[in-house]
Amino acid sequence: MIGSQDASTASAAPASMNGAEALLRTLVAGGVTVCFANPGTSEMHIMDASQRVPAIRFVPCLSEGVVTGAADGYGRIAGNPGCTLLHLGPGLANGLANLHNARRGHAPIVNIVGEHPSTHRARVTPLASNIEAIARPFSDWVRTADRAASLVADAADAIAAARTPPGRIATLIVPADSAWADGIEPAPARSPPEPRPPSVTTVARAASMLRARVPTAMILAGNALHGRGLILAGRVREATGASLLTPFPVSRMERGAGRPVVDRIPYVLEDAVTTLRAFRQFILVGTPTPYAYFAYPDQDAVLVPQVSETLALAPADGDAAVALEALASALPTASELGSERTQARPSLPSGAINPLGLASVIAAVLPDQAIVVDEAMTSGRSIMAACAEAAPHDWLGNTGGSIGIGMPLAVGAAIACADRPVLCLSADGSGMYTLQALWTMARENLRITVVVFANRAYALLKHEHARIAGGDRASPILAMFDLKRPDLDWVSLARGMGVSATRVDRLDGFASALRAGLHGRAPNLIEVPL
Amino acid sequence: MIGSQDASTASAAPASMNGAEALLRTLVAGGVTVCFANPGTSEMHIMDASQRVPAIRFVPCLSEGVVTGAADGYGRIAGNPGCTLLHLGPGLANGLANLHNARRGHAPIVNIVGEHPSTHRARVTPLASNIEAIARPFSDWVRTADRAASLVADAADAIAAARTPPGRIATLIVPADSAWADGIEPAPARSPPEPRPPSVTTVARAASMLRARVPTAMILAGNALHGRGLILAGRVREATGASLLTPFPVSRMERGAGRPVVDRIPYVLEDAVTTLRAFRQFILVGTPTPYAYFAYPDQDAVLVPQVSETLALAPADGDAAVALEALASALPTASELGSERTQARPSLPSGAINPLGLASVIAAVLPDQAIVVDEAMTSGRSIMAACAEAAPHDWLGNTGGSIGIGMPLAVGAAIACADRPVLCLSADGSGMYTLQALWTMARENLRITVVVFANRAYALLKHEHARIAGGDRASPILAMFDLKRPDLDWVSLARGMGVSATRVDRLDGFASALRAGLHGRAPNLIEVPL
Repeated sequence: MIGSQDASTASAAPASMNGAEALLRTLVAGGVTVCFANPGTSEMHIMDASQRVPAIRFVPCLSEGVVTGAADGYGRIAGNPGCTLLHLGPGLANGLANLHNARRGHAPIVNIVGEHPSTHRARVTPLASNIEAIARPFSDWVRTADRAASLVADAADAIAAARTPPGRIATLIVPADSAWADGIEPAPARSPPEPRPPSVTTVARAASMLRARVPTAMILAGNALHGRGLILAGRVREATGASLLTPFPVSRMERGAGRPVVDRIPYVLEDAVTTLRAFRQFILVGTPTPYAYFAYPDQDAVLVPQVSETLALAPADGDAAVALEALASALPTASELGSERTQARPSLPSGAINPLGLASVIAAVLPDQAIVVDEAMTSGRSIMAACAEAAPHDWLGNTGGSIGIGMPLAVGAAIACADRPVLCLSADGSGMYTLQALWTMARENLRITVVVFANRAYALLKHEHARIAGGDRASPILAMFDLKRPDLDWVSLARGMGVSATRVDRLDGFASALRAGLHGRAPNLIEVPL
Repeated sequence: MIGSQDASTASAAPASMNGAEALLRTLVAGGVTVCFANPGTSEMHIMDASQRVPAIRFVPCLSEGVVTGAADGYGRIAGNPGCTLLHLGPGLANGLANLHNARRGHAPIVNIVGEHPSTHRARVTPLASNIEAIARPFSDWVRTADRAASLVADAADAIAAARTPPGRIATLIVPADSAWADGIEPAPARSPPEPRPPSVTTVARAASMLRARVPTAMILAGNALHGRGLILAGRVREATGASLLTPFPVSRMERGAGRPVVDRIPYVLEDAVTTLRAFRQFILVGTPTPYAYFAYPDQDAVLVPQVSETLALAPADGDAAVALEALASALPTASELGSERTQARPSLPSGAINPLGLASVIAAVLPDQAIVVDEAMTSGRSIMAACAEAAPHDWLGNTGGSIGIGMPLAVGAAIACADRPVLCLSADGSGMYTLQALWTMARENLRITVVVFANRAYALLKHEHARIAGGDRASPILAMFDLKRPDLDWVSLARGMGVSATRVDRLDGFASALRAGLHGRAPNLIEVPL
């Protein structure tokens, strides 16, 4: 996936350039060609250099959570690092929550943060901060390029770090004096480390577990859920009868007609326990042991039954597809892809808005090769199941539990694949964290349809409160989780950022608006009051 | 300022309560009575307890930058810690940038972050993170209350830390099992350390500098800019002829008719150098040596002339008013407050929109005791000067250079002082970072008028680009700093969050809308296209 062009000739570089331009040409040489940006003064030389390196596309975003979330969405779909440009410590800080999500989902990101020049860094000034300390809890790799001469080598290392399977967050801090220094040449791409397959013993053990006549689930994540990894997982299932599961947080899953169906472990703790209770053996492929998101006074978050055996075929930071390749080779009967369900689109329902009806409309209308971004929270839990037999599509979810990734992910995915329609399923509460993404959708004219399910509440928190309050659903504290007084008006919010929008009150209206939106060429938003 | 009620009787506490309720009663006992919140599941016991402790007001916010910025605004105006409630590491992360601003301005904040229970913390789960490491770069004090028995003592310590003059960021991390544990009693308030006055030698040296016939400036910050501190600064000037200056980032300054005028050091580096070139002596009162925000290839950020003497009468984290008290006592002639300019409101201009006209309208219309929040960026630089002779008011600015504090600050200030109108001056670019604050304004029916100066650009960055690009104002890269294609429509955005809004195209329309807004009882927004 690494660009094969030599860095020095990649973009007809002049004989001498500054660090900023050499940095950008190094990115291009390393195959990094999209940068989501919310820059400031300390990044100005990089911005200035961008006009001399047209091979890298800069996408402006109006808040940093959009920047990092878009880089995540781009990385998930392109399989290539998304790049950011952030302004000093506070700009990085605003982008951290979606970096957290990206890291949990192993998206490859080259996260570039500007820094004051060395003379200025030691002083107490308004924007001074310890950027490395800020970045570290959310990064797999952090380096400050404090010598101009090594800036491009640092950048090449950052790209290789981001590309390390299954994808990492590499934060490169660029002091302004490294960017403005003259006489720097770009660096060629460096190869990331090769993924390591599991040991022969581990593969043999997994094969033996699969041959035993014991209920067994393979729990898949990472690249076991798309492309060759998913095909291999389907073959293993055909050969052994194992069930295919995935933890609730889904980074990228290929779904729909003709593809192996992988069942998602439910969000609600008791439902997840019930799902996993059916099994005595678990083979983990690219995921740690799954737990519930939260533990409660009356119930711990353990999901896997006590009397069971668990084997990690590929660790969470490993290459799941490579591990499945090794496993499939050890199962000689698994050489052919078995039959999978074919497309059976549900018929279009009509009538009043209801959760199952909305899910059926989406499954019926979804175009072939659509990308679905799911942050619909409680309103959207039935949609994924309904889409199992829809046209083939990719499904991107919230990987780290930090709410506010949906619309940014959609931006990144749409830029990675301009020819595929993107359907972004949002809740009103989740959408509000990073609604600034709508402006970038309009500015870049991205092919995104945002559906906002407006239940006027943080409904998840109401459920959680009822849980700890003995089922009390009339507590005055529930008003704290309302998004009422005033209602959010998503049609106005979208129009305020240049995105055309409509509100629907019946399923047929939803179906028409959704079909028009997904087949249009411009971003659009549909508010669905619940 | 500490609540004098005994904690155990403060709110008629029952005999036994859980940690969450004891925590809230400890906050109330310590005088902390407002909590800006964006909670999640891990904070649910605290939310549940809030209905049993009505003495603390919970204010919901739809993004965490609003939470921390509002706590900052509350702290600046109330002189009392604002409190937050944030959800785990990612929720904290979203609030960090405005914590950075709050810390630079020495606002007192008790920053409460929920955490998983101890059993759950060691696991790799979607929302696991190292919260202490995330908090530390932005906090003066950090502690995890990982023993339920010491939770309330930890909270009392956090309040005392936040109250340590001139105000600090105290981050208290509350694991859910400390909140849900039963049988906890609240803790009484603890006294923060007393502020330390400067040494006799330092005061004598400052007095001697002020008596010398050399151009001398006192550079004031913190509580030297309001209340008794500002009165004392005025007396010292009357007695000695020293000039009164303040660094560009202003936390809270009392201004207007009858008050000592303090000149702000300009933002633009060359203008700041010119201002300070007039002096040979500088006495720093509650501020470090001022530097420009940024250093450039052709010019370092040093503002104070090389041939000058600088004395720190009070350090940046000291109590400036206490230091001025000591200094005034050492200057026997300075016992009376001298005469200051009286109110001379400018007449109302009319005609087409222009920067000076807008500034004059604001100065003329500003009601007595208004609170002005300034994040108008390039569009608003003439407003502060114009308001020097307006009705008495407080001026709150951006203290840490992280953009996106304006509307949140206004929320906090309006809650601290429900009887004072708040005027929030915003730019379109700065406003977009935390526009979710508009919803909280509507929900709490806050008396805030937001003016958005819509120049459709990050204009500051255009200036900065011209600076490094030799004055090039036609570069294609400038489009990256445009907020055009599409224009932001602030009237729609405000309405989308329940705030009434209007757009004006002439100065008379602006004056009418502003007067109506500032004298109304509900939040409102005025968009001023430039």
